Amino acid sequence: MKNIMLAHGGGGVEMNSLINDIIFEIFDNDILKRADDSAVLGEFKNLAFSTDSFVVDPIKFNGGDIGKIAACGTINDLAMVGASAKYLSCAVIIEEGLDIQTLKDVLNSLANICRDSDVKVVCGDTKVVPRGKCDKIFINTSGVGEILVPNIGVNSLKSGARVLLSSDIGRHGGVILASRNEFELQSELQSDCKSLKGVVNALISAGIKPLCMRDATRGGLSAVLNEWAVASGLEILVHENKINVCDEVQGICELLGFEPYELANEGTFVVAVDECDAQKTLEILKSFDENASEIGEILDSKNSRVIIQNAYKSRRFLEPPKGELLPRIC
Amino acid sequence: MKNIMLAHGGGGVEMNSLINDIIFEIFDNDILKRADDSAVLGEFKNLAFSTDSFVVDPIKFNGGDIGKIAACGTINDLAMVGASAKYLSCAVIIEEGLDIQTLKDVLNSLANICRDSDVKVVCGDTKVVPRGKCDKIFINTSGVGEILVPNIGVNSLKSGARVLLSSDIGRHGGVILASRNEFELQSELQSDCKSLKGVVNALISAGIKPLCMRDATRGGLSAVLNEWAVASGLEILVHENKINVCDEVQGICELLGFEPYELANEGTFVVAVDECDAQKTLEILKSFDENASEIGEILDSKNSRVIIQNAYKSRRFLEPPKGELLPRIC
Repeated sequence: MKNIMLAHGGGGVEMNSLINDIIFEIFDNDILKRADDSAVLGEFKNLAFSTDSFVVDPIKFNGGDIGKIAACGTINDLAMVGASAKYLSCAVIIEEGLDIQTLKDVLNSLANICRDSDVKVVCGDTKVVPRGKCDKIFINTSGVGEILVPNIGVNSLKSGARVLLSSDIGRHGGVILASRNEFELQSELQSDCKSLKGVVNALISAGIKPLCMRDATRGGLSAVLNEWAVASGLEILVHENKINVCDEVQGICELLGFEPYELANEGTFVVAVDECDAQKTLEILKSFDENASEIGEILDSKNSRVIIQNAYKSRRFLEPPKGELLPRIC
Repeated sequence: MKNIMLAHGGGGVEMNSLINDIIFEIFDNDILKRADDSAVLGEFKNLAFSTDSFVVDPIKFNGGDIGKIAACGTINDLAMVGASAKYLSCAVIIEEGLDIQTLKDVLNSLANICRDSDVKVVCGDTKVVPRGKCDKIFINTSGVGEILVPNIGVNSLKSGARVLLSSDIGRHGGVILASRNEFELQSELQSDCKSLKGVVNALISAGIKPLCMRDATRGGLSAVLNEWAVASGLEILVHENKINVCDEVQGICELLGFEPYELANEGTFVVAVDECDAQKTLEILKSFDENASEIGEILDSKNSRVIIQNAYKSRRFLEPPKGELLPRIC
């Protein structure tokens, strides 16, 4: 393979191979290779650091826009390592001719999420490229946050842990799919795009020590569970009937041949906790979103794979996503 | 004005108005409004934070490539507030079809600068957009560094301070101009693109406390001096014959009607120091680059403007850059 394909950005097998075989090799260091959602920097006391670029198309969608997603994405990546986001950078690449009101709208969305999440945008950068050299606007946010609980990450996954999901799945991916296919459904469904700082802080304040958390963005729930299975070397079992999928997302998946497990989310996360913390975790997740559920557990088996069981106890592998899932989902 | 123009990204008057009137208003906070090259975060001990996106065209140029510039740009922004860069993020937006060898080459350039500067790339992001939706590759780097000396910034500028320049000017801008105009000169001239971490650390280790530093990127020396004059409310006098410009840059400027003062640099900075530190500062700058020079001083006059004096003592205003300087210079 000599050239970059869309699949290299899709969150599936091809992206993992690009990251593992090329990028990690070039920037060879232990912090990066831990491959958590944020880097944990020992040198600066309790500091976590994360980055994400956003190229979502369309830039405005039901339930959000590129500014909202840019703020939530990095705040959430910090939350996933148990860090409370404090400061964000905001770097924009703007296509010549973009109307200034659109720029203001998306930056206001970004600023509103930051205000609500008690996060300050403290540095930025503005580039403008000629017409046709980018598409309207791309936004990078990087963030620093304070780690509230140490050692949350794939290294802490272990057999016996319970796996919970903070919401129903597939709404962000469903909205983007619908907007590109001009469905009737479009007006009903809202992206799940939101900041997870509040719910994660609530879990930690309640004394829960999550083992590992991951927001189910590109590649969806399936990508997260498969990454966890590979990283831990353990087998994960989840129950189909415990994973909530709303009717609109189910409908879009049936029409277009997608699996809801592979659709992106932008405010929904997976969390593994010790069995003794599972009930309390579920209560707190449900107080933020009634569609939260306990979906499965990590088995005492070194098979490094994900099994999904349906209501009739029939089991199949939940394969990692592959191919061109959906370009420019975030 | 309703739409974004190329000039909004040029580093001149239009970019300043976009940043001051729109972006600073939306993300209203004191740290951001300080408008130094990096944010200084009191909450985390001695922490500086900075971001830059890079869209340079062509992605490979004499003396560097987009990977080298992406590493140097953020390392240098941290150095300019007296911070020693420690960790970088690297987020790439890649156009579908880019050949993977090119990706490896630019990321290796980025990694080489980081290795030489003792900086680790600890987090990243990879997006791929369809053909025609960006141009080859855009890179964002954000960085965190340890502040070695506090209070370096425009707030510390004062009358009587000496102004020094770390090198000759305009080489990066000249290289990009030449590459777009297919000059013979192209093969001679090298971009000044380099990390400034070493020279700034050397100044600080020698006991010098710079008042303010700024690397002369978009908008060049003229943009830096005019920003300093506006921010401090003081008048700055510089001497034309002290500002070194190599023959190739001079030639390109004469052919294309540019001023070397407005051409971008990617490894050249302006530093203001107390008079008592000027001689030692110059010696250290010269030990890194023989073209370093003391170029002027900050006058005891609240005129908030920049004066340039030629060898015949004739004086004129050095106006801030304006208009489409050169799109995608960095």
